[in-house]
Amino acid sequence: SPTETERCIESLIAVFQKYAGQDGKNLTLSKREFLNFMNTELAAFTKNQKDPGVLDRMMKKLDLNSDGQLDFQEFLNLIGGLAQACHDSFMR
Amino acid sequence: SPTETERCIESLIAVFQKYAGQDGKNLTLSKREFLNFMNTELAAFTKNQKDPGVLDRMMKKLDLNSDGQLDFQEFLNLIGGLAQACHDSFMR
Repeated sequence: SPTETERCIESLIAVFQKYAGQDGKNLTLSKREFLNFMNTELAAFTKNQKDPGVLDRMMKKLDLNSDGQLDFQEFLNLIGGLAQACHDSFMR
Repeated sequence: SPTETERCIESLIAVFQKYAGQDGKNLTLSKREFLNFMNTELAAFTKNQKDPGVLDRMMKKLDLNSDGQLDFQEFLNLIGGLAQACHDSFMR
């Protein structure tokens, strides 16, 4: 049976494909799909943000090639950034 | 209860800390800790490699600042790289 790390790698791929497949291009997250993902899968984070513009700014920052879509690598940068922030807060 | 994505973020932090804490510096993976991690948590990947030098080359490539240690960001690049390779192979 897969290890926890292997399961997580599979799970990140599956969750990306689930949201990327909601509308339009199946291989990228549109702004709407990104918002659906953030408000559903990372609701604990999203609800804590007092600034209503935070998700807009995150999308812009993550969308490195500014095509209005997040590809899988850009999505991994989001997960990595959140994990890094979480890890740093444990280290304090 | 946490979503699958939130659980994965926590899980990646926990597995990094588990291996980083095995010897020496607690905040980074030494070469020995990296090998322990790869041979235990990603054994399915590691066992499939026919080239015995692959883990040595991965460590060198991941260790961006060449200090002989992998920090959490460098570790996330490893997970991201494997997820990307895995995702690409599903897309073919």
